[in-house]
Amino acid sequence: MEQLQRLPGVGPKSAQRLALHILKRPEAEVEALAQALIEAKKQIGLCSVCFHLSAEPVCEICRNANRDNNTICVVADPRDVIALEKTREYKGKYHVLGGVISPIDGIGPDQLTILALQRRVSQQKPQEVILAISPSVEGETTTLYIGQLLKPFTKVTRIAFGLPVGGDLEYADEVTLARALEGRRELD
Amino acid sequence: MEQLQRLPGVGPKSAQRLALHILKRPEAEVEALAQALIEAKKQIGLCSVCFHLSAEPVCEICRNANRDNNTICVVADPRDVIALEKTREYKGKYHVLGGVISPIDGIGPDQLTILALQRRVSQQKPQEVILAISPSVEGETTTLYIGQLLKPFTKVTRIAFGLPVGGDLEYADEVTLARALEGRRELD
Repeated sequence: MEQLQRLPGVGPKSAQRLALHILKRPEAEVEALAQALIEAKKQIGLCSVCFHLSAEPVCEICRNANRDNNTICVVADPRDVIALEKTREYKGKYHVLGGVISPIDGIGPDQLTILALQRRVSQQKPQEVILAISPSVEGETTTLYIGQLLKPFTKVTRIAFGLPVGGDLEYADEVTLARALEGRRELD
Repeated sequence: MEQLQRLPGVGPKSAQRLALHILKRPEAEVEALAQALIEAKKQIGLCSVCFHLSAEPVCEICRNANRDNNTICVVADPRDVIALEKTREYKGKYHVLGGVISPIDGIGPDQLTILALQRRVSQQKPQEVILAISPSVEGETTTLYIGQLLKPFTKVTRIAFGLPVGGDLEYADEVTLARALEGRRELD
């Protein structure tokens, strides 16, 4: 239970429930779970190009010749790659920062993969770098910092902020509404 | 209780709670409430220019000379005007449609104030009409319909759809993420 409680989202009660569940299962099943954890930890590392999670030195997306090398989408976290892949809209490559700039937590550009990104962009010369970083204070800082850094090399865009699809104008917060208004575009 | 239950969001339990509360209050207070309802209904009508709620024939926003006559923001409902006013970002005028096109509910362009909008735009010749309609199926239909209608007269824009501010990439639904990606803009 002590070990289980260290997992995210697992409090004392969930830990107890999980532990009791495990005690009830056959030994082979428990061993399979334990082995899976060890294997995953051993085999999954970071892609040497984009820093996404990968079992190989270079990840599947980076190796995929059908994906557009001319666009790099920069995200904070491997979870964001997974979320964007689910949309099936994006056909370019990625770059995972491993977090956002947050001086309060001691995370500066050097703690992230920003230098590697700069090197990659200056060598690979993609046509566009899309910054897809959540709009928190730290996210904005990171977006602006990387924007300044990469502008000499390529076109830098950022994803749109505004009303979520299916969202109701009336229930949107004021900052989101203001951004939706500011980011308006001409109808085709 | 029967009457109270007709209000939106008031079910049998809330109606009972409200009714019992009213029975406990002094008579003067209850009369003040009843009077306020009657007065509001009597005095508040629709602005003859923009169809927002108004106690005067022409509403305060339409009469305000400090507001930009060159922009008209088109919304479905008076609530949307109130939401947009709270952002304090918008300085132009409004036009309230009174709903969205919804053939299933028998609401076509003629049931809304679209004809009045077209007349207003063709006469007043604003520089821009901003469509700020929620992105439901009906909302999209309405946006496209009005867009086609007004394009001969003026520049027609629509508000941005994308990630809500403070929202996390990871928790955004796929359609919203796809729109955020599609609506990306170049960093200044």
